[in-house]
Amino acid sequence: MGKVLKGPSLFIYPTPALLIGANVDGKPNFLAAGAVGIANGEPPMISVAIRSRRYTHRGIIQNQNFSVNVPSVDLVKETDFCGIVSGTRVDKVEKCKFKVFYGKLGTAPLIEQCPVNLECKVVHVLELDSHSLIIGKVEETHISDECLTNGEPDIDKIRPMIYTVEPDCHYVAFGKVIGTAFSIGRELS
Amino acid sequence: MGKVLKGPSLFIYPTPALLIGANVDGKPNFLAAGAVGIANGEPPMISVAIRSRRYTHRGIIQNQNFSVNVPSVDLVKETDFCGIVSGTRVDKVEKCKFKVFYGKLGTAPLIEQCPVNLECKVVHVLELDSHSLIIGKVEETHISDECLTNGEPDIDKIRPMIYTVEPDCHYVAFGKVIGTAFSIGRELS
Repeated sequence: MGKVLKGPSLFIYPTPALLIGANVDGKPNFLAAGAVGIANGEPPMISVAIRSRRYTHRGIIQNQNFSVNVPSVDLVKETDFCGIVSGTRVDKVEKCKFKVFYGKLGTAPLIEQCPVNLECKVVHVLELDSHSLIIGKVEETHISDECLTNGEPDIDKIRPMIYTVEPDCHYVAFGKVIGTAFSIGRELS
Repeated sequence: MGKVLKGPSLFIYPTPALLIGANVDGKPNFLAAGAVGIANGEPPMISVAIRSRRYTHRGIIQNQNFSVNVPSVDLVKETDFCGIVSGTRVDKVEKCKFKVFYGKLGTAPLIEQCPVNLECKVVHVLELDSHSLIIGKVEETHISDECLTNGEPDIDKIRPMIYTVEPDCHYVAFGKVIGTAFSIGRELS
């Protein structure tokens, strides 16, 4: 087995396909983002990397909050649309027929059709190079009741998507379970 | 469709199951991490959230570098093992039979059996609460030659894993392609 050098890259798998929401000049707008990660455990914090020229970036700075919405595979067209067009030109909420609601933070727009919605309050903004890395503290989570089993989120009902980075740039569904964490590795102990 | 409130959470999907590597006191060690994300586009940067008491954290601070290794589904036991045990007690490289090599940075350990390996140089450390958010600039990428198609990484050959957060804590394989990004959304234009 040989290795081939590819230079600096972002070949990590999986990356998510999430809809980041912010009110811009008082109107809800959403951006499709793959550059989202967990930043802290207790309390829960999320990082989102966004180019500073993006319309959604402006709204996040204005309100000091944002939302993370998990689309199901049924929303693949809408998710991609939110990654292709800019809110400066198009009312994405109208085009995607998103039903928008607000929660605890009051100004972080949430998409009813997305099974999971997180409301995040900005706690840090780290200016890197092409992107601002925005760290948000999760203040509230909303989950569609039909996506719960015994009161807990159920992946088989949420049916989230993966975004694969270049060269494919595919949206991919979750496949089969191959093991349980903190369990299957004990065989090596 | 109603929504149920779940309080602050980290219910984002997918999260990855990656092996973060660092030399600790000169010896390679690996940690399974789900809290990894893209932090910047140009140049490529990755964020990794690690508890500061973790053994791998010590190594990252010592060397100011780390690796991100993408395990295939074949390495699910080894990946989980690296999330269960601490390098303070166990030589994970030996237990997992990892073949370790080094690249451009000299001290960021890379796992030959993982199809994709990124070498990262620390550029920022943001102390949050339970975790340090470490930002690494990707300096080099190594890809196993049998995981390339036409010289580019091929997901069907890499076969990466997803880690699903609580309550399931499952490792999940990638499923079927449901659309191509920057394309399928044009239908809504």
